[in-house]
Amino acid sequence: MTARRLNENANGVYIISATPFSDDGALDLASTDRLVDFYLEKGVSGVTILGMMGEAPKLSAEESEQFVHRVMRRLDGRLPVIVGVSNAGTDNLRRLAAVSMDAGAAGVMIAPFAGLNTEEKLFRYYEQVGAALGPDVPICYQDYPQSTGVHISVDTLLRMIAVMPQMVMLKHEDCPGLGKLTRLVDAMRSGAARRISILVGNGGLYLPQELARGADGAMTGFAYPEMLVEVVARHAAGDTVGAEDLFDVYLPLIRYEQQPGYGLAVRKEVLRRRGVIASAKTRDPGPALSAPDREELTSLIARLDRRLAEAA
Amino acid sequence: MTARRLNENANGVYIISATPFSDDGALDLASTDRLVDFYLEKGVSGVTILGMMGEAPKLSAEESEQFVHRVMRRLDGRLPVIVGVSNAGTDNLRRLAAVSMDAGAAGVMIAPFAGLNTEEKLFRYYEQVGAALGPDVPICYQDYPQSTGVHISVDTLLRMIAVMPQMVMLKHEDCPGLGKLTRLVDAMRSGAARRISILVGNGGLYLPQELARGADGAMTGFAYPEMLVEVVARHAAGDTVGAEDLFDVYLPLIRYEQQPGYGLAVRKEVLRRRGVIASAKTRDPGPALSAPDREELTSLIARLDRRLAEAA
Amino acid sequence: MTARRLNENANGVYIISATPFSDDGALDLASTDRLVDFYLEKGVSGVTILGMMGEAPKLSAEESEQFVHRVMRRLDGRLPVIVGVSNAGTDNLRRLAAVSMDAGAAGVMIAPFAGLNTEEKLFRYYEQVGAALGPDVPICYQDYPQSTGVHISVDTLLRMIAVMPQMVMLKHEDCPGLGKLTRLVDAMRSGAARRISILVGNGGLYLPQELARGADGAMTGFAYPEMLVEVVARHAAGDTVGAEDLFDVYLPLIRYEQQPGYGLAVRKEVLRRRGVIASAKTRDPGPALSAPDREELTSLIARLDRRLAEAA
Amino acid sequence: MTARRLNENANGVYIISATPFSDDGALDLASTDRLVDFYLEKGVSGVTILGMMGEAPKLSAEESEQFVHRVMRRLDGRLPVIVGVSNAGTDNLRRLAAVSMDAGAAGVMIAPFAGLNTEEKLFRYYEQVGAALGPDVPICYQDYPQSTGVHISVDTLLRMIAVMPQMVMLKHEDCPGLGKLTRLVDAMRSGAARRISILVGNGGLYLPQELARGADGAMTGFAYPEMLVEVVARHAAGDTVGAEDLFDVYLPLIRYEQQPGYGLAVRKEVLRRRGVIASAKTRDPGPALSAPDREELTSLIARLDRRLAEAA
Repeated sequence: MTARRLNENANGVYIISATPFSDDGALDLASTDRLVDFYLEKGVSGVTILGMMGEAPKLSAEESEQFVHRVMRRLDGRLPVIVGVSNAGTDNLRRLAAVSMDAGAAGVMIAPFAGLNTEEKLFRYYEQVGAALGPDVPICYQDYPQSTGVHISVDTLLRMIAVMPQMVMLKHEDCPGLGKLTRLVDAMRSGAARRISILVGNGGLYLPQELARGADGAMTGFAYPEMLVEVVARHAAGDTVGAEDLFDVYLPLIRYEQQPGYGLAVRKEVLRRRGVIASAKTRDPGPALSAPDREELTSLIARLDRRLAEAA
Repeated sequence: MTARRLNENANGVYIISATPFSDDGALDLASTDRLVDFYLEKGVSGVTILGMMGEAPKLSAEESEQFVHRVMRRLDGRLPVIVGVSNAGTDNLRRLAAVSMDAGAAGVMIAPFAGLNTEEKLFRYYEQVGAALGPDVPICYQDYPQSTGVHISVDTLLRMIAVMPQMVMLKHEDCPGLGKLTRLVDAMRSGAARRISILVGNGGLYLPQELARGADGAMTGFAYPEMLVEVVARHAAGDTVGAEDLFDVYLPLIRYEQQPGYGLAVRKEVLRRRGVIASAKTRDPGPALSAPDREELTSLIARLDRRLAEAA
Repeated sequence: MTARRLNENANGVYIISATPFSDDGALDLASTDRLVDFYLEKGVSGVTILGMMGEAPKLSAEESEQFVHRVMRRLDGRLPVIVGVSNAGTDNLRRLAAVSMDAGAAGVMIAPFAGLNTEEKLFRYYEQVGAALGPDVPICYQDYPQSTGVHISVDTLLRMIAVMPQMVMLKHEDCPGLGKLTRLVDAMRSGAARRISILVGNGGLYLPQELARGADGAMTGFAYPEMLVEVVARHAAGDTVGAEDLFDVYLPLIRYEQQPGYGLAVRKEVLRRRGVIASAKTRDPGPALSAPDREELTSLIARLDRRLAEAA
Repeated sequence: MTARRLNENANGVYIISATPFSDDGALDLASTDRLVDFYLEKGVSGVTILGMMGEAPKLSAEESEQFVHRVMRRLDGRLPVIVGVSNAGTDNLRRLAAVSMDAGAAGVMIAPFAGLNTEEKLFRYYEQVGAALGPDVPICYQDYPQSTGVHISVDTLLRMIAVMPQMVMLKHEDCPGLGKLTRLVDAMRSGAARRISILVGNGGLYLPQELARGADGAMTGFAYPEMLVEVVARHAAGDTVGAEDLFDVYLPLIRYEQQPGYGLAVRKEVLRRRGVIASAKTRDPGPALSAPDREELTSLIARLDRRLAEAA
C-alpha cells in the first residue's frame, strides 16, 4: 500500500463515495468492493470517503474504520483516498484521521461546524485542528455553507492557506460561488497566494463554468462518474465546447440528483440500477424514494439514454 | 379596468415580474411599460409583481404604489395581477393589499417571516392576516423556505386551505418539494381537500416533473418566459416529451439563473440584452455581474441560441 | 433645536424607546410625549428610537417620520437622539437617516441583515452604507446576532472603526459577549484602535460585568430606566458594589423582560402600569400577555417593590 | 442494581451531569465518582448524563459507555439515571440506548436534529425512533430550540404524547416558554392529554415561574444543585415565597452560567472550585475561561457567599 500524500497539484475527479448498506441497514462490504471497482473503471483520479454524502455521522466508529480499511484494501494503492473526518470533537476527529493515515489515506477533509459563527473562530478552529493532526496530515477544506451554515470570506481562506502549509485542497461548493472561485484562482495565479488544489462539489451543477474559471477538477458523487471524468478530460484537452456539450446531456439528472437532503436516495438508486450496489438503502433517518419518485427517475434515465444514443 | 379575482382554477404561467431601475437606482417606469408589453407578448397568463425577485423590500411605500398603478394601467385588465404584500407589520401589509385591490389586482401573495417558528404560529398568522384583509382578498401562499426559513407541513397547509376560503393558490417552491407536491395534489384530487391552484417557482428548475405531478403551471421569473409558456402549453396538450425536450434546451440557463442571491442580476442582464429593460441595475444592497460573469453569460446565451437553432 | 452630533465620548444610558400604540394599533402620540417626559425625568443621557424594540419595521415610512418629529419636538434638544434606520434597501435607509438628521438627530443606528453571511460582505455593506449616508452622519453599529443572525469578529469591527471615522458607537449585545467586550476595550485603551463609545444592550442582563470590563454605559429599554441610570452612575462614581447591589434587586425582572420575542409585551405592560403609556399594545404580529402572564408580572413587581423597600 | 423505569410521575431535580476531563482532555473517572457523590449529597432526585452540557458528541462511543457504566456503578441504584442518546444516526442512538438500559438506566433523552424542519417530519422521526427503541424504553423529549433549531407546537407534542406511551417526560427549555408550559399543563390537568412529567431546563433561569405554572421540577446542571433542590422542595411544601427568595439570591450566578456556548466553562470551573472535579477542562473545541473571566467569577461567588450569609 503506497501512502501518497495529497498535495496542491491534485486534479481530475475525486469521487465522493457512497457508503453501501444492505436493506437492513448493515454496512455492505461486498457492495463496497464493487463500488470501488466501479469508480476505478470509470477513471476517477481519487476517492473521497465518509463525506456528508457518505452518511459518515450515522456510522459507528468501528464501522467507519472498517469501511476505511475495506476501501483501502480494495484500491490497493491505485488511487489516493481522502477521508472525511469532520466531528464535533477534536479527539474523535484526530482518532479517525490517525486510523485513516495509518491505513494509507492521502489526506483528510474537514468541514466547519455550526458554532463557528465568526471568521476568527473559524480560523482558530482550523489552526487548532491542524495542530492536533500535526503538519504531516494534508487537509482539504470543505466549503459547503448550504449544509454547514458556515460561510468563509476569500480573505480568511487565503489567510488559512498562508499559515497552514498542510492545507492543500479546497472542496469548493459555496453557492453562488463562481465569483469566489475566480477571486481565489486569481490570487493564486498572480502569486498573491500559495496555490492549492480546488475541486468543485455541488453535485457538479456548475462544472463547465467552474473549470473555465480555473478549478482543477471535481469532487462530487454524481452517479455517472464517467461524465465527470470525461468533462474534466475534454476541458483539460482544450475541448471546452465538447466538455459542456456532454455536461448538458446529463444536466437534467445532475439537477435532479442535486436536490438537498433527497438527492442521496436518487444517487444510491442509480448506483443500484447500474448494478454497483445491492441496495439503495440510506441509514435512518434518511431519504427514500416513493413509487412516483422511482417512475420519474426511470423516465429521466430513459431520456438520458436516448440523448446519449443520439449524441453517439 | 376589470377586477378579476384570483381563484383556484388559475393555471398557466404567472410571471414573476422584475422591477426595473435606471442605473442610478430610480424606478424606471418606461422600462416597466416595456416589461409589461414583453410579458404580454410572450403569452403569460398572469403577472406577479413586488415579489422577492421584484426587490419589494427595497422600494418605498410610494414607489410600490406607483409601480402597482403603472403595471395595472399598462396591462389595462388584459391579465390578472398578483401583488406580493409580505411585510413585517400587518398594517403595512393590509395597506398595500388595499391599494392593490383598489387598483384592480386579482389577489395578493404572502410569504411567512422568520419568527413563525412553529406551525401553530404559522397557522395563526395566516388566520390573522386573512381576517385583517377580509374574505374578499384572494391569497396565494408562498412556500419558499430556502429564503424565508419557514417550513410548512402538508397537514398544516391543508388545514389552512380548509378554514380559509380566500386561500386559492400555492406558490410551491419548497425544495426538495416533489413529494410534497404529490401529496398536495393527491389530497385535492381525492376530494380530501379543497382544490387550490398550485403554481411552481424555484426558477422553474423542476418544471416538467412538477407538471407531471399535477402542478397547474408556473410562477417564476425566468428571463425567457416563452419557454415557460410553451412548456406548460405542450404539457397541457399532452406532449409531455416535447415539453421536456424544450425545457432541457434551456436548462443550462435555468440552472444558472437559479443561483440564490445572485440570479436576479443574471435575470435582469438577460432582460436588458433582450431590449426589454434599460438597465440591469439591482438596488443596493444587491448583486451585480462582474466582467467574467458577463462573458460567461454571453457564452451560455450563445449556446442556447445554437441549440434552439438546431432544434428548429 | 440643537443638532449635537453623536461622538465617541457618549456614555451613560441611551434608553431604547418603545413606540406607543393605542389599543387599535394606531400610533399614540400623546403617550409618546409622556414617554419622552418619563425618560427625561429618569435621567437618561440619550434616547434611541425606532430600534428593533421600537417595532420600527411595522411602521409605515410616514409614521416613522411622524414619530421622529414628535420625539424631537418633545425633547427640544435636551437629549441626543439616535434613530434606528436599518432597512432592506439602502435608499430607504438613507431616506429615513436624512429625515432624522434634518430633524436634529445625533446619529443613526444600523444593524446588519441576514444575507451578510461573510465578514467581507458585512464590511463592504457598512462601507457602502457609510458612503451613501455621507461622512457627517454618525453611525452606531448594532451587534445583536441573536436577532440578526449576523456575527462579527473583533478584527472586522476594528477594521470598520479604522476606516470609517463616522462609526462612533457600538451597541454591544452579542452573547456571550463579555470576552469580546474586553478585547475591544483593550484594543482601544492600548491605542491599537481608535476609541469609540460602547453601550451595552441585551436588556442590561450583564450590565455590572460589562461596566467593569470598560463599557461606557447602556443602550437598552428596560422598563425601569432609573435602575440603569443609577447603576451606571454608581459605577462611574467608583461604587461598584453599590451598583451591583442595586442591579441585583432588579435582576428577576430584567431576566423576565429579556425573554426573546416576548419581553417587549412585558416592557410595554410595565410602562403602562407605571402610567407612562396608555396601552401595552404591540403591533401585529406581536406578542401579548395572557392572564397568567399578567399575574406573574404582578407578583414579580410586588417582589421588586418589597425588595426596594427593604433596601431603602 | 435496580432498574427503575422512568415514568410520568418523575419530579424533583434531575441534575444534568457534567462530564469531567483531566487537563489533557482524558475522561476523568475519579472526578466522575466525586461528582456522583456530590449530586447525591445535594439531594437530587435523578441524574441525566451525556446531555449537551455533558459534551456527549465529543466522546467516543467507548468513552460514552465507560462513563455510563462508571456513573451507574457509583450510584448503585440509589437514583434513576437518564442517558442522552441523541445521534445523527438511529443505529448509533439505539446502540447507546441499549447499552444504557442494560446497565440499569431509567430512560433516555432525545433531542431533535436540525433537518427536522417540519412538524410532520419531527413527529415521524420520534415515531421511528420509538419503534427502533421498542416500547420498554422510556423517552424524555428535549425541547431546546435555541440549540437544536427545531421548534415544536404544543399540538404536535400532545399528539406525540397521545400515540407514544413510552414518552413519559418533557425537558422543557423552549424560550420564551412560559405560555407553552401553561398550555401543556392545562391540557394534562384537564384530562385532554395524558400526563407526563415536565422538568425545566435553561439553567433554571425561570424556575420559580415554571414551578408556579405546574412544572414538576428541574432538569438542569447549575453548579449549585442544592439551590435547585431547595427551591423545588420549598415550592412543593407551599412556600413559594421562600422558594423564590432563595432563587433570587442565586440568580446573578444562574444568569451568568446561562450564557450560551460559554456557560459550561463557568459551570465546570465552579465545580472545580467546590472541590468536586479536578479540572475545568472542556474538550476541544470548547470554551475556556480567560483571566478576566475567572476574576469576574470570583467576584460573583463572593457576592453569593455574602448574600447567603446575610440570609442565614
